[in-house]
Amino acid sequence: MGELQEAIDHIQLIEHCRQAAAVLFWEAKTGTGIGRKRQYAKVQGTLTKKVIELQTDPRFGRLLQNLLQRDLDEVHRKQFEFHLKNYQYLSSLPVEEFQQFSQKKAAAYSHWASAKRLKDFKLVEKDLADLIETQKRFAYLNNKHEAPYNQLLDRYEPGIHTEKIDCLFKNIKDTTIKLLDRIQKAPVQPDSSFFRRPFPLEKQEQLAHQLLTAIGYRMDAGKLAPTLHPFSSGIHPDDARLAVKYAENDVKSAALMTLHEGGHSLYNQNISKELVDTGLAVYTSMGLHESQAIFWEKMIGKHKGFWKQHFHFFQKLMPEVYSHISLDQFYFSLCEVKPSLIRYEADDITYPLHVIIRYEIEKDLFADKLKVSDLPEVWNVKYRNYLGIVPQNDCEGVLQDVHWYFGLFGYFPSYLIGFIYAAQLREAMIKDMPNFDVLAQEDLSAILKWKTKHIYQYGKLKTSKEILKDLSINEINEKPLLTYLTQKYEDIYRL
Amino acid sequence: MGELQEAIDHIQLIEHCRQAAAVLFWEAKTGTGIGRKRQYAKVQGTLTKKVIELQTDPRFGRLLQNLLQRDLDEVHRKQFEFHLKNYQYLSSLPVEEFQQFSQKKAAAYSHWASAKRLKDFKLVEKDLADLIETQKRFAYLNNKHEAPYNQLLDRYEPGIHTEKIDCLFKNIKDTTIKLLDRIQKAPVQPDSSFFRRPFPLEKQEQLAHQLLTAIGYRMDAGKLAPTLHPFSSGIHPDDARLAVKYAENDVKSAALMTLHEGGHSLYNQNISKELVDTGLAVYTSMGLHESQAIFWEKMIGKHKGFWKQHFHFFQKLMPEVYSHISLDQFYFSLCEVKPSLIRYEADDITYPLHVIIRYEIEKDLFADKLKVSDLPEVWNVKYRNYLGIVPQNDCEGVLQDVHWYFGLFGYFPSYLIGFIYAAQLREAMIKDMPNFDVLAQEDLSAILKWKTKHIYQYGKLKTSKEILKDLSINEINEKPLLTYLTQKYEDIYRL
Repeated sequence: MGELQEAIDHIQLIEHCRQAAAVLFWEAKTGTGIGRKRQYAKVQGTLTKKVIELQTDPRFGRLLQNLLQRDLDEVHRKQFEFHLKNYQYLSSLPVEEFQQFSQKKAAAYSHWASAKRLKDFKLVEKDLADLIETQKRFAYLNNKHEAPYNQLLDRYEPGIHTEKIDCLFKNIKDTTIKLLDRIQKAPVQPDSSFFRRPFPLEKQEQLAHQLLTAIGYRMDAGKLAPTLHPFSSGIHPDDARLAVKYAENDVKSAALMTLHEGGHSLYNQNISKELVDTGLAVYTSMGLHESQAIFWEKMIGKHKGFWKQHFHFFQKLMPEVYSHISLDQFYFSLCEVKPSLIRYEADDITYPLHVIIRYEIEKDLFADKLKVSDLPEVWNVKYRNYLGIVPQNDCEGVLQDVHWYFGLFGYFPSYLIGFIYAAQLREAMIKDMPNFDVLAQEDLSAILKWKTKHIYQYGKLKTSKEILKDLSINEINEKPLLTYLTQKYEDIYRL
Repeated sequence: MGELQEAIDHIQLIEHCRQAAAVLFWEAKTGTGIGRKRQYAKVQGTLTKKVIELQTDPRFGRLLQNLLQRDLDEVHRKQFEFHLKNYQYLSSLPVEEFQQFSQKKAAAYSHWASAKRLKDFKLVEKDLADLIETQKRFAYLNNKHEAPYNQLLDRYEPGIHTEKIDCLFKNIKDTTIKLLDRIQKAPVQPDSSFFRRPFPLEKQEQLAHQLLTAIGYRMDAGKLAPTLHPFSSGIHPDDARLAVKYAENDVKSAALMTLHEGGHSLYNQNISKELVDTGLAVYTSMGLHESQAIFWEKMIGKHKGFWKQHFHFFQKLMPEVYSHISLDQFYFSLCEVKPSLIRYEADDITYPLHVIIRYEIEKDLFADKLKVSDLPEVWNVKYRNYLGIVPQNDCEGVLQDVHWYFGLFGYFPSYLIGFIYAAQLREAMIKDMPNFDVLAQEDLSAILKWKTKHIYQYGKLKTSKEILKDLSINEINEKPLLTYLTQKYEDIYRL
């Protein structure tokens, strides 16, 4: 067997194990039966370990290096480069310490869950400090010449480092804080109490199905299930699954979350099938992935035209509540701006501030400017300063998101980078299709087609930078986002 | 790490890959989306290959041999013995030929599907001949001193070979053919046309849920899905899944099949969880597994007391049909005896004959007394002689079951061995619980408890022979089955 075939087969083996692990992850996180879920979490762990073993096989590393000396077609070159990068990073880490890290993450996760229940950060403080030290050390081992935090940022959005982010986020912070102040002083505010009226869970699930179908999600190439922490999982373009959380008194969150995870899933479903089993049939960067979730959630799911077409979903499922509500009332309430403590339930204006707070804290932690023990205090001060509200306890505050307690640092900024990209890409789309507002109401398939053509199909074949460049976007830029938010919310709140 | 731990870890790895493969098999066989199903069949293939690689690792073989020299507790001894047996069998086969065999099976399976569609045995004749030759050769390589067909039988019901089976099946054939004749001449025959009235598929699925819950299947430790070829899958005691086929004009088949696969699943669900990840948390033999499917399908699902309690399921789901039917009519039609061409839809009296035909043919094929090309003719002659009916084409005849075309020989007899065991175990249960008939109506949980205590919990920790012995059943014996069938059907048909 030639080297080329050997590498392709090895990559296929990695990919099959990864896909199986993803299916088992789904089994562990959805459905019923605590015993089953626990067992599948174990099986998933075994498969993930296998994936890493295969990715760090020295013979595979040599093979990739040899092959990359040759003339290769684009798909082969890109997939070998991708796997070599993985190989090099993972091989730079000490095996034993890396395995311990998995155990540390699992322990921290479980301590975080208890700490959250008991609303006491102290219970997980030591784990967190340890995870941060380990990540710093791994970054140092991988590359002595680049700041650890930049290396972490690189994993989620390659090439966008603190210098750039500082500048982007500063402008966004200034503008959104001012805009928030104007909105809060606006004379007319929505009455959103109807959104909190009980909406049976089965009907919310029906609503989720209807919304997903409306945006073009193919139900026969995925799955939808209820869960505690929403997620989407791009196992394969023919199996892009999503799990959503429903709460009886919060149908608004469920609808928007469905569109958010649905946006991720539209990306996952529309990657070219030719990339299956190469390792390239996944989103290109976390920032770009997030941009698509945000686009379908906020730029379609909060587009008035979309609801002109689809408000009847609510009215048919719950006529006793929604037949008394006008489209204008519904839409105003859907877009309500109101500072709140929980990031993933935040409105469009305060959402960036939630992300910026996390970014500032992460950056200071990795620059040794902040002690882990001071986190809850720093968190609360920032919430008061930027949003004017203060968590009553650690559960509503520093413990709300799992990321840090699972060793994920440098991830949060991609939520806001995604928002910035979403606005830039929206502008690019409007240049091609000036009738965007009509399409958002009448023909979402044209929008999905554009997205697929310019973004989704490529998977990891293009970097996010290349995707932007091919749409004549030379660089990440926060202005389109700020224009978009200002115009939209000045209009909604009649400022 | 000590050898003991090393072996346990290796076995756990095998088991996790097996469980993952089983989940992927489920994904490949149920649900929608042809692309997804095809991909998961590939991933399952990869995982299964991995399982075999792990099972035949020479280091693992040596480890097991060393460990079995030691004093071990029962669970360790049994699991090492089980894996060593697997190891020895698989290692006796030439690696390359064994891999080719997998490909041959896949090819034969696909040719079988076309042949069945086109009703032409010729299209798969060569594949079948090749699979038979390969199985003969593998058996020879594994053990020169035992007839190949006996070796194959051994895989499904250890220790029960042709000599024994000839004797058991001959008596069953004689008795059932005579009984069938008397039944066909009985003056009163049921009118079962109501079973063929349209019964919407969603309602059949609800019925399946209700029946499964009635027999004690825990819905939170399994899954039920529609499929084309019914099966059950014991991935883990907390995840015993089953897939059932529904046809609008055949609710009777769906109900009985649900109870059949449900019986398998009750076994799978009630294996001791202490055996998880040892390789022993599965049914002990195919014959015993089948006996439990048959018990719940035929000895509970065709028990009048059971339907006294549960006939209202039909009446509530389809009052327009079943409110006009009396329990007596329903029960008589459910137990109707009528020769038909398809094995898995057969009644209790002709079912053994379907199995015996397949057994006689297999035996002759492996003894070189029958040419593959003569199969359709021989099949049809036997159907005429034993059942008095003749298939109109190969699809209804020799092509109906997939087993042979997937290389499975020696498997069919376990269906009838299972029926024999079911009757023997029923007698043992009645000795312990003489109020069996009352329990079948009023307290199935007592029956499930007995089954779990004496059979299910042990998984592969006891052989079927040991399980029978501990219930004072010294040997397999067809008489309880014949007594059971004769009494029951003389009563039903008032002979």
